[in-house]
Amino acid sequence: MSNTDLLPVLEPEAVPCCPPLDERPLTAEEAERTAVMFKALADPVRLRLFSSVASHEGGEACVCDISDVGVAQPTVSHHLKKLKEAGLLSSERRGTWVYYRVEPTVLAAMGAFLARAASA
Amino acid sequence: MSNTDLLPVLEPEAVPCCPPLDERPLTAEEAERTAVMFKALADPVRLRLFSSVASHEGGEACVCDISDVGVAQPTVSHHLKKLKEAGLLSSERRGTWVYYRVEPTVLAAMGAFLARAASA
Repeated sequence: MSNTDLLPVLEPEAVPCCPPLDERPLTAEEAERTAVMFKALADPVRLRLFSSVASHEGGEACVCDISDVGVAQPTVSHHLKKLKEAGLLSSERRGTWVYYRVEPTVLAAMGAFLARAASA
Repeated sequence: MSNTDLLPVLEPEAVPCCPPLDERPLTAEEAERTAVMFKALADPVRLRLFSSVASHEGGEACVCDISDVGVAQPTVSHHLKKLKEAGLLSSERRGTWVYYRVEPTVLAAMGAFLARAASA
């Protein structure tokens, strides 16, 4: 009954996104990769879900914990999957539910990318 | 000696996007506003232009300085305008050209938003 979702996995040692923004223009390939991550956060519902996970007790949440963003549970699952595919959330199945957690490496890199630009 | 946790505080009138991500779920209105900024960076061409401005000599550039992202000048102008509308670039007309510069306050807030999530 449970079909395992095999999602693309980021290499643990992979540089998650981007060189310092004020160093040089991004290459086309770097820009494509980085845009995917920003695109994942470019949707209000995904942003609300993302902040729901980040602020949830213990820093993790399952679909069962998130029901107040005004969309149905399958839509919540769909958006969480998108965030995971972009590398912003990691997930772990425990029993019936998949628990999502913010992926610190990727977010730290995106944050640094912007912070460098801010001080450029 | 108390270890007061004094986090960098943004000027009240200059809160450009978002409360600390790990504090509470974003409201619908906050998420709408924040999504606009991430959407501006969710396009590879805009990311390349953005990094071109940030890394350009003096931290500013006009359309005349940016010609190597594989799109025509009117398209470059269009994307720079989008980045400006999202609050990520500021601009100043000098003579014939409009010069663009990274808007540090907004970027710092976006960076902090992500960094807080990274340490959540």
